[in-house]
Amino acid sequence: MATTTLRSVKSLVPLLDRVLVQRVKAEAKTASGIFLPESSVKELNEAKVLAVGPGGIDREGKRLPMGVSAGDRVLIPQYGGSPVKVGEEEYHLFRDSEILAKIKE
Amino acid sequence: MATTTLRSVKSLVPLLDRVLVQRVKAEAKTASGIFLPESSVKELNEAKVLAVGPGGIDREGKRLPMGVSAGDRVLIPQYGGSPVKVGEEEYHLFRDSEILAKIKE
Amino acid sequence: MATTTLRSVKSLVPLLDRVLVQRVKAEAKTASGIFLPESSVKELNEAKVLAVGPGGIDREGKRLPMGVSAGDRVLIPQYGGSPVKVGEEEYHLFRDSEILAKIKE
Amino acid sequence: MATTTLRSVKSLVPLLDRVLVQRVKAEAKTASGIFLPESSVKELNEAKVLAVGPGGIDREGKRLPMGVSAGDRVLIPQYGGSPVKVGEEEYHLFRDSEILAKIKE
Amino acid sequence: MATTTLRSVKSLVPLLDRVLVQRVKAEAKTASGIFLPESSVKELNEAKVLAVGPGGIDREGKRLPMGVSAGDRVLIPQYGGSPVKVGEEEYHLFRDSEILAKIKE
Amino acid sequence: MATTTLRSVKSLVPLLDRVLVQRVKAEAKTASGIFLPESSVKELNEAKVLAVGPGGIDREGKRLPMGVSAGDRVLIPQYGGSPVKVGEEEYHLFRDSEILAKIKE
Amino acid sequence: MATTTLRSVKSLVPLLDRVLVQRVKAEAKTASGIFLPESSVKELNEAKVLAVGPGGIDREGKRLPMGVSAGDRVLIPQYGGSPVKVGEEEYHLFRDSEILAKIKE
Repeated sequence: MATTTLRSVKSLVPLLDRVLVQRVKAEAKTASGIFLPESSVKELNEAKVLAVGPGGIDREGKRLPMGVSAGDRVLIPQYGGSPVKVGEEEYHLFRDSEILAKIKE
Repeated sequence: MATTTLRSVKSLVPLLDRVLVQRVKAEAKTASGIFLPESSVKELNEAKVLAVGPGGIDREGKRLPMGVSAGDRVLIPQYGGSPVKVGEEEYHLFRDSEILAKIKE
Repeated sequence: MATTTLRSVKSLVPLLDRVLVQRVKAEAKTASGIFLPESSVKELNEAKVLAVGPGGIDREGKRLPMGVSAGDRVLIPQYGGSPVKVGEEEYHLFRDSEILAKIKE
Repeated sequence: MATTTLRSVKSLVPLLDRVLVQRVKAEAKTASGIFLPESSVKELNEAKVLAVGPGGIDREGKRLPMGVSAGDRVLIPQYGGSPVKVGEEEYHLFRDSEILAKIKE
Repeated sequence: MATTTLRSVKSLVPLLDRVLVQRVKAEAKTASGIFLPESSVKELNEAKVLAVGPGGIDREGKRLPMGVSAGDRVLIPQYGGSPVKVGEEEYHLFRDSEILAKIKE
Repeated sequence: MATTTLRSVKSLVPLLDRVLVQRVKAEAKTASGIFLPESSVKELNEAKVLAVGPGGIDREGKRLPMGVSAGDRVLIPQYGGSPVKVGEEEYHLFRDSEILAKIKE
Repeated sequence: MATTTLRSVKSLVPLLDRVLVQRVKAEAKTASGIFLPESSVKELNEAKVLAVGPGGIDREGKRLPMGVSAGDRVLIPQYGGSPVKVGEEEYHLFRDSEILAKIKE
């Protein structure tokens, strides 16, 4: 886990085609309001995009467009990505092409 | 297994050349109507395409056409793909080029 | 083994540069007509092409021509390919470039 | 070993840049005519080219020329190639670029 | 660890797309001023860029622009990079594309 | 070790960018003329180029020039290359780009 | 270790993008002049460039420029490169792109 001294995740400006996301946290209580022990809470693969890089560079030096934007809800793969910790919160950096799908609800 | 809080799989919008499919379920009963125990039901490699991405991007930044469309019945490989769970149902995301064949019956 | 509910292998339409083949079965009896136990029957690497895809796509988006056609007898490699089962019969999907040779007799 | 029902190796028509060769057999007797037990006969890496494919296809769809022709004597690598058996004889299929050298004597 | 006789890290001029960085050191004391034993100090993944190369060269011989500049604060990956020691200080050389994000605070 | 029935190494005509070399043999005696047992003779990485291929083919079908010529003394890598035996002598085939340096003395 | 019969390292002419370097030797005595046993002398990653090749060849057959020149002091990676011994001295051949940085003091 990459640990930092940052005060705010807003200080992170992704480079190239990287996408900074935060996983949606699973509710730690049941529908009827009973709190679950932490081990029963499954990790979700939904995430919110916080910031995106300007795009990768192709062989002719042109920027490739990004597929996702800040604010998007996305489906992220189970493994991979670079974890980074700011304060007590955990975030991930993925490459744009690793994001599986957008979530539109 | 990627777990989500989505209410409907229709909220998933695949990116690039990804294809969202759902496996056809094997009948859990015999021709004569007798229900089989779950362990005797073989997993099928037929799937229905629910949604497709806009296509991958080639080196000149052009979209490559997709080989399959939503609604297609397809043959998927035995392994691979990214599983995703919505409610109690399981889906898979494959890359377009991983789909083996269309099924026309 | 990919299992399907297909009634006929003719429903399978290979995608891109894939080639659907069926292995030629070795005679399970000797020249003099004596039936051999199954373990003595060697698996042959001859196959008949049942269907071919439209061809892979190069970087400029053009279709690449296929080397084999439906009806061809071909030599297939010992390993590889994606097996698929339709009814009690087994078939394989190879990429066009994996087919070793045509057989003209 | 790929086994076939072919009556003649002449039925094999290599695809793309494949080269069908047969290894030169080492003499199983000494210069003075004494026959050697099979275990003393070393496998040679000389081979005769029996047939060649039309050449691989480059990214622009053009055929690449073959380096060897039917009838050439060639030096083949110790390992690799796809073995194929026709009757009691064994042959190999190599890619054109795997052939090490021609032998001109 | 690459060891050198250099008197100053300023003598190092990175080549191609390499980036010379120094990790930000974690405070070895608590907020209330109590010094921590070294084993409790976590390694941070923040770094300061000390010098950058002129950029990698693409296939046409053109320099590719660098994403970071000397003086930037950056997020570096947990693993990778080439460590180098000058005097008692440790530095790392990364490729430009390995730097995850800039830190703007 | 590739074994052959060749009478002369001059019969070997390397293909593409291959380079046929023979290692320089270490003197099996000391400066004062005392013969060393074979186990004390170190294998040298100097070699003489005996023949070179016409050059590899680039993607546009053009021949790439060779870096070494027949007659050159060269430095070869410790490992790699395809060994070939003609009579009692051993030779190696390397790719042109594997030759480390020419030796000009 | 590649061993040679060369009388002088000046006979070595690197090919393509190779760089011939010699590691800077660590002082085997302390500042106050006391000689250290060999095991206490750390291997340095500084090296002097003795000779460079003409540059690698790109896909269009053009030479790519070298990043370092004979006489440069450079930082070399801890591992890799091809070692070569001339007399009692040891040298290394690296590819131009493996050299980490120039040293300007």
